[in-house]
Amino acid sequence: MRNFQKSSGMKFQKYTPFQDQIEVHLPDRTWPDQIITQAPRWCAVDLRDGNQALIDPMGPDRKMRMFELLVSMGYKEIEVGFPSASQTDFDFVRQLITEDRIPEDVTIQVLTQSREHLIERTYQALEGCHRAIVHLYNSTSVLQRRVVFREDMDGIVDIATTGARLCRKYEEQMTGTEIVYEYSPESFTGTELEFAARISNAVGEILEASTDRQMILNLPATVEMATPNVYADSIEWMHRNLENRSGIILSLHPHNDRGTGVAAAELGYMAGADRIEGCLFGNGERTGNVDLVTLGMNLYSQGIDPMIDFSNMDEIRRTVEYCNQLQVAERVPYGGDLVFTAFSGSHQDAIKKGFEFMDADAAEAGTDRDGIPWGVPYLPIDPQDIGRSYEAVIRVNSQSGKGGVAYLLKSEHNLDLPRRAQIEFSHVIQNMADSQGGEVTGDQLWQVFQDEYLPAESEADHTSRWGRYRLGLVSSTTEEDGSFTMTAEVEVDGETRERTVTANGPIAALVKIFGDDGLDIRVLDYSEHALSEGGSAMAAAYVECAVGDRVLWGAGLDYNTTMASLKAVVSAVNRALRDDEELAQAVAGPGAGMDARA
Amino acid sequence: MRNFQKSSGMKFQKYTPFQDQIEVHLPDRTWPDQIITQAPRWCAVDLRDGNQALIDPMGPDRKMRMFELLVSMGYKEIEVGFPSASQTDFDFVRQLITEDRIPEDVTIQVLTQSREHLIERTYQALEGCHRAIVHLYNSTSVLQRRVVFREDMDGIVDIATTGARLCRKYEEQMTGTEIVYEYSPESFTGTELEFAARISNAVGEILEASTDRQMILNLPATVEMATPNVYADSIEWMHRNLENRSGIILSLHPHNDRGTGVAAAELGYMAGADRIEGCLFGNGERTGNVDLVTLGMNLYSQGIDPMIDFSNMDEIRRTVEYCNQLQVAERVPYGGDLVFTAFSGSHQDAIKKGFEFMDADAAEAGTDRDGIPWGVPYLPIDPQDIGRSYEAVIRVNSQSGKGGVAYLLKSEHNLDLPRRAQIEFSHVIQNMADSQGGEVTGDQLWQVFQDEYLPAESEADHTSRWGRYRLGLVSSTTEEDGSFTMTAEVEVDGETRERTVTANGPIAALVKIFGDDGLDIRVLDYSEHALSEGGSAMAAAYVECAVGDRVLWGAGLDYNTTMASLKAVVSAVNRALRDDEELAQAVAGPGAGMDARA
Repeated sequence: MRNFQKSSGMKFQKYTPFQDQIEVHLPDRTWPDQIITQAPRWCAVDLRDGNQALIDPMGPDRKMRMFELLVSMGYKEIEVGFPSASQTDFDFVRQLITEDRIPEDVTIQVLTQSREHLIERTYQALEGCHRAIVHLYNSTSVLQRRVVFREDMDGIVDIATTGARLCRKYEEQMTGTEIVYEYSPESFTGTELEFAARISNAVGEILEASTDRQMILNLPATVEMATPNVYADSIEWMHRNLENRSGIILSLHPHNDRGTGVAAAELGYMAGADRIEGCLFGNGERTGNVDLVTLGMNLYSQGIDPMIDFSNMDEIRRTVEYCNQLQVAERVPYGGDLVFTAFSGSHQDAIKKGFEFMDADAAEAGTDRDGIPWGVPYLPIDPQDIGRSYEAVIRVNSQSGKGGVAYLLKSEHNLDLPRRAQIEFSHVIQNMADSQGGEVTGDQLWQVFQDEYLPAESEADHTSRWGRYRLGLVSSTTEEDGSFTMTAEVEVDGETRERTVTANGPIAALVKIFGDDGLDIRVLDYSEHALSEGGSAMAAAYVECAVGDRVLWGAGLDYNTTMASLKAVVSAVNRALRDDEELAQAVAGPGAGMDARA
Repeated sequence: MRNFQKSSGMKFQKYTPFQDQIEVHLPDRTWPDQIITQAPRWCAVDLRDGNQALIDPMGPDRKMRMFELLVSMGYKEIEVGFPSASQTDFDFVRQLITEDRIPEDVTIQVLTQSREHLIERTYQALEGCHRAIVHLYNSTSVLQRRVVFREDMDGIVDIATTGARLCRKYEEQMTGTEIVYEYSPESFTGTELEFAARISNAVGEILEASTDRQMILNLPATVEMATPNVYADSIEWMHRNLENRSGIILSLHPHNDRGTGVAAAELGYMAGADRIEGCLFGNGERTGNVDLVTLGMNLYSQGIDPMIDFSNMDEIRRTVEYCNQLQVAERVPYGGDLVFTAFSGSHQDAIKKGFEFMDADAAEAGTDRDGIPWGVPYLPIDPQDIGRSYEAVIRVNSQSGKGGVAYLLKSEHNLDLPRRAQIEFSHVIQNMADSQGGEVTGDQLWQVFQDEYLPAESEADHTSRWGRYRLGLVSSTTEEDGSFTMTAEVEVDGETRERTVTANGPIAALVKIFGDDGLDIRVLDYSEHALSEGGSAMAAAYVECAVGDRVLWGAGLDYNTTMASLKAVVSAVNRALRDDEELAQAVAGPGAGMDARA
């Protein structure tokens, strides 16, 4: 068949191929024959490289949570900031040290540019620390030498060696702190290899790197510029050509501009590196740093101890999402919502058969699934090892297609459930699907939703209503000063009473009415949206309530936005009363609590 | 420095290293010396592999939009479905053909399993098509042979060859359709190479693959099982060992379980492949298929014509997000929101200097930036080439940190602006930052937000109020039948009138009141949320209104959820009136329109 592809018409001629910018020539490379058999030294740079690339950088609280997460997972080298460039970072380093937050076997790392006042301030930040890595960098690429520094090679080497000398000077003034050095020829991937080796050797000499006191030499793909095999070649070239290899811990710091950061790290590690810097779930400038979760779990899937504990992946992910204020996408390896979900029938069938074989094999061997080699089609690892499950995302199967509960409600009924409400309702559906054989149609789903959240709203079929409370007429007045008075007819167990209360607004007023009935309600979250275009469209309201000890959601639909939100509160209360005998007793009977307070 | 890392305590012993499962031995590999110089043949499988992995699979409308997007970008081979497995897919293929939607130079591709009734139905779907690729597959891996098919090698070969013969049989009954074959030994990465070659050769023989009529042989990394160099080795092995290489278009289909799908595709292409199957932004089962956007743009960044037009990346992304109902994450190469954003001062400075040099170089050469080689630190490509800009995400700089507009409002004031409202307000801030030198503090931001959206709410400083409308007392009654009557004091240009209307709810009532004043308002979207925990907490409401010809947002804050939503409508109206002289004239003066209708 002919290839019909045509020119894109794009301006590709503007770009110089990598091989015409930097020569990396290593035809006798050995890394493609290597097989990884043990974990590298890890260094987590979430609190520095990751943090500097956040829309909303971490404050002290989020920083501390990230630090404690990294420590709890087993990271022993953690770059905690750029204290000379940021007062927040300086204060955080001081807090770690003065509050004694750094375990003895954990080493913090701080970044500094090669300038005297910054280096001085860096050492001030470290006072009293048991051990620290001082990470000195300057940019060495052809492009940056020309446009940013306007210096020749000697000038750039001078920047680095001057910085190294200053480090030694300020180090001498420290007492009781073990200082380890890291040097990064930043933008290494855009630097001629000979020059990268020259500047690294020069710095190593001044820092007196030796087998007894190794220096970390970090070779960043500050910008990923070529296929990952080229990075591996450049790492092997450095590994072979550095003057003092035994005095050096060779470190990688890949970014992901070409989407090959993980590959670059793995191939670079095969090429002779000892250590990898990265971030959880690949946070960092632009496309991010290499993803430490993927790297660690890739080792794990090959039967290699990652030396990092990923057994509670959801907790790791939640903390990272909180600290970074960025979501982990659905298809991110190991951590994404959809990565252990099979959608197609043939995949589901194969997985089922795989589990059956494992159970049979395990029984034969007198052990359980953990006692035999893992082997299930389409599941590269056992989701349970990281606290997840193969059924993590609820599927709603029907002949015509498949869709998640939340998505069907959204696409067929325009309901946009808040995330926690989705989870709650998914459990309701899961229980139903389990008891009925796993098939739930879109119509059934909507029936279940109505029955679960909206029973007291359905007029047509009074027999199916199970909600004890129901709203009748509601009227209200808002004064200009904000004071609000609401009169509502509230039906309890079929008997209607009128109630008038003053509160901040309608939801607060209704909460007060329930409070008078002996129901302790707190509204935890609330959201509401139009179901479609137009001012007269239906609104859907969702309210998360703590009713007594239980936390649960209510939903309400109404053309009137206020009524929708009030109905949502009633919905939550009815659900709580249905499921909790004790609570139901507290509402003693029709209007029992009312007379006393009316 | 000692390595303090400790065992993770995880169950890594369960996993068998890849090299102990499948032998891939090719010490004389040549691919690491190859350099990519031209685009492969692309095949987009978004409508099949991508679609089958969606929570909410595409219906006919979304399918057609995806197909038209792929065609408009320049994809010439497009897998459009699995028509024998899904009625929706069957109908879509028929629609494409009967409605003549397939350009002459575009070839659709359909997947089928190797079973007679499925193959027959597949050819039925293709009737009347000018040219089609019939994609036959069966699973060949060691694991699937054992647990799913319970067949030996001969049995598996028989499944494939029987399918190939049936294809020939049904092909003979077709008229006017050029049939091209593709065969996939599915789960190739878990298959012994010798066996993969044997089954591929056997199928090729039956299909009479030849230089004149090539067969596509597709070697999927159905599950990514090893570092990407191993996939490249296996592709080079196949490339060298296939019996009839000249009769074959060698195709790759990498998945991304280890986060190295892009690398596997690139190295596999260097190893001798001709063609790559993938999805836009890497949609697909679990962690997804290889990302066609990244692959194409990686070529582009090396001065190679991708043969696909990515010049309107935002439009591509919007369509994909609509069709897949999945967001493209912030750090996805080339398409993510943050990939052309520099956060750190040193990056921003280097980029600025890079642009200055480019302008100087261009001026010297008597051309513009497009006329000289691209070279700006931290920007691997010129964002403008794909319709984006270096300033795509609005930055709000302050000494203490940096944060996006929306994030500052969220973190400091708990305001969770809907996405389109974020964009609108970002423009307001951008205009201000541009005129004041680019520095906006969090406090200033909040002032601007109040001044822009909430002026009529501010009591303290009447002099700064610019809104013509203001709400006073509001009272309402809701009947049990849903009918709603609202009485509101509405202040226009300082004069207050009381108005009573009947409508579906408070927002509709207020829209009616404005309508009586000659203002044509439609509510396009509405959302509301609590600012913090507790039933008496403040609510924030956002309403997107079409006021006359303009679409704009209003915001309202109140302890009363109803009042917040009404204030949001007033906010939108006040903004529209401020910015539109003509509209302002329509509201002739204090209460001008009121008397006539009161």
